[in-house]
Amino acid sequence: MKNLVINCGSSSIKYQFIDMADESVLAKGLVERIGIKGSVITHKVNGKKYVTETPMEDHKKAIKLVLDALLNDEYGVIKNIDEISAVGHRIVHGGEKYSSSALIDDDVMKSIEECVSLAPLHNPAHIIGINACRELMPKAPMVAVFDTAFHQTMPDYAYMYAIPNEYYKKYKIRKYGFHGTSHKYVSRTAAEFVGKNVEDLKMVVCHMGNGASITAVQNGESVDTSMGFTPLGGLVMGTRSGDMDPAVVTFLMEKLNISASEVNTILNKKSGIEGLSEISSDMRDIKKGNYVDKDPKAILAYSVFNYKVKQFIGSYTAIMNGLDCLVFTGGIGENSFENRREICKNMEYLGIKIDDAKNDATMGVPMDISAEGSKVRVLVIPTNEELMIARDTKDIVSKLK
Amino acid sequence: MKNLVINCGSSSIKYQFIDMADESVLAKGLVERIGIKGSVITHKVNGKKYVTETPMEDHKKAIKLVLDALLNDEYGVIKNIDEISAVGHRIVHGGEKYSSSALIDDDVMKSIEECVSLAPLHNPAHIIGINACRELMPKAPMVAVFDTAFHQTMPDYAYMYAIPNEYYKKYKIRKYGFHGTSHKYVSRTAAEFVGKNVEDLKMVVCHMGNGASITAVQNGESVDTSMGFTPLGGLVMGTRSGDMDPAVVTFLMEKLNISASEVNTILNKKSGIEGLSEISSDMRDIKKGNYVDKDPKAILAYSVFNYKVKQFIGSYTAIMNGLDCLVFTGGIGENSFENRREICKNMEYLGIKIDDAKNDATMGVPMDISAEGSKVRVLVIPTNEELMIARDTKDIVSKLK
Repeated sequence: MKNLVINCGSSSIKYQFIDMADESVLAKGLVERIGIKGSVITHKVNGKKYVTETPMEDHKKAIKLVLDALLNDEYGVIKNIDEISAVGHRIVHGGEKYSSSALIDDDVMKSIEECVSLAPLHNPAHIIGINACRELMPKAPMVAVFDTAFHQTMPDYAYMYAIPNEYYKKYKIRKYGFHGTSHKYVSRTAAEFVGKNVEDLKMVVCHMGNGASITAVQNGESVDTSMGFTPLGGLVMGTRSGDMDPAVVTFLMEKLNISASEVNTILNKKSGIEGLSEISSDMRDIKKGNYVDKDPKAILAYSVFNYKVKQFIGSYTAIMNGLDCLVFTGGIGENSFENRREICKNMEYLGIKIDDAKNDATMGVPMDISAEGSKVRVLVIPTNEELMIARDTKDIVSKLK
Repeated sequence: MKNLVINCGSSSIKYQFIDMADESVLAKGLVERIGIKGSVITHKVNGKKYVTETPMEDHKKAIKLVLDALLNDEYGVIKNIDEISAVGHRIVHGGEKYSSSALIDDDVMKSIEECVSLAPLHNPAHIIGINACRELMPKAPMVAVFDTAFHQTMPDYAYMYAIPNEYYKKYKIRKYGFHGTSHKYVSRTAAEFVGKNVEDLKMVVCHMGNGASITAVQNGESVDTSMGFTPLGGLVMGTRSGDMDPAVVTFLMEKLNISASEVNTILNKKSGIEGLSEISSDMRDIKKGNYVDKDPKAILAYSVFNYKVKQFIGSYTAIMNGLDCLVFTGGIGENSFENRREICKNMEYLGIKIDDAKNDATMGVPMDISAEGSKVRVLVIPTNEELMIARDTKDIVSKLK
């Protein structure tokens, strides 16, 4: 079985083509600027990169170009389109209906449509992408893998906001959580790495990239997660504020005389690490050139980021009444030994102690960075959302036969 | 020394007259509906209540009536107004300028005025109250005791929101924290109760009433607290939402087509326990008639409240890397053994274990409800903000001589 994984944005498509026999990536790539001047597809095979700039008026044309690349005489990896066994689509929002991945049929399409108001930037693009794939690969079964699904196991007291009940009923305002595919993949991989059943572990998974979220995983299930109604909630991120006193939102609107949509843009695009540091939204920029040793605003942004992560680790340790594994993943989680060091510093009371030498030496593979005697196993586990999507797709499609 | 404590709201005044020799309350009372039809003063002496309905056009008239009550032939407690040694005023917002109480002079008045935009409902009323007192008691020194002062020791990474830096500089948007007088009083009383120096303890103080906040107290100082820029932030409260994904605020405004001020009213007055339960904002109502055994919405409101407290305890234990004392105070904290039981349930990993019999038997005096072998001392300490204000007033006025 060879599965194509599609992550379709409003003007871009990320894809991977995976051989499920050994889970190797046969090809992957990125299409950018769909429907905009300067459309370009970057296709990667065996470490080589093939960049083609060519007009793409819509997503159907873009998907066609992805298939052409996969079939290409020179750098293609299949001879016939039927070699694509199935297609897995990353879908940001599945609302309350999907607690696992689903074979795409008209009902599923309708549900994704129903969640458009909850993910107005993402779900419409997903629908366009699925429709294009269905037209071009009519024989391939399609699977929807939802970012929200893994978190549907949260209890109501974790996902309900303390606002009038009617807004939950009428508008579905609640905490959904995101990055679910990553949290699921990483929690399973971590359990395997320590040689235990995920059902027997209390875990906190810190997915820290430009977007960042933390999940408490107990008995293999998400019992709480930091992102909320939208991916703006929870931790401080590259450009996002995270949770806060809601009065800040209304105070800003009144002081600046701006609309709800304008303040939303400030909190999503100009806040977080960027807003605090006034340097960059990228943690690498904050750390480089010794900013964090010299520039008070860089120090502040860096400290606030790490502090919030510490707080969530404590909070989730409390609600699970224990912690077996603390897991770091995502761009910052996998690569920044400095952030991991700061986050794990002075956390012995919770049973967390890392070995600095091990922490400094992580290399893009699963690693245990705990100090000897640390009650909690502290792990770095590279995430792989595409592989998780391909696996879910395989599981669902296999059952069809 | 006999100190008068004044807590002045926009149409009400609470007062206590305290003999500092033994810290006994000589008289106390409440003036309501100032400037509104049906103004009334309720004065209490020796457990007896004297209610007088009489017109009060303004705060000066109301303060005059308080002084008349204190001087009354029948139920008064002083013969001469000069027996009032000093007056302590509760001030909600002191901004960043005051980390302790201050003798009121023109500079202090100006500072309270400058914080009006941060506490538009409270600070103007305080100013009116102070001016009335100054006119009527020109010889008595006046002291301002700020709700925010105790929290001024928070480090910047705890008090800064991850929004563009300029809004902190221009509009002073940051976390201030409130209930500071209570957190200070309770942390000191708790330390004394366990026979240690407050400087040697890591404490989490849960002040839970209709408003609720939690403070991490380390070395005797507030290092973090749950309330934020305003008293809307942090925990779920009687009618307040607490912290959340800011996108909920803007989504609600757009869906309901309401203004910033209207959504602010919903989140302050119709949310929290009341919004979730659709029964009441009062924890006692939620618990009575077995609501919490039968009504799903009451169970939800109750669970959400307790869950958030648990989370903050975990979060603050993490940032202090330890916990010596967990302290409950405020209406719910002092009286609801059910809430304390739920909050402390399954918290052994953090070292918290209570004795159910002790927990059920609290009686309005400081008590230790820890189970034998609990690493953390769990205490119930009745708060007394008025006494703290009277003490601060005494300290400052004594230094004048």
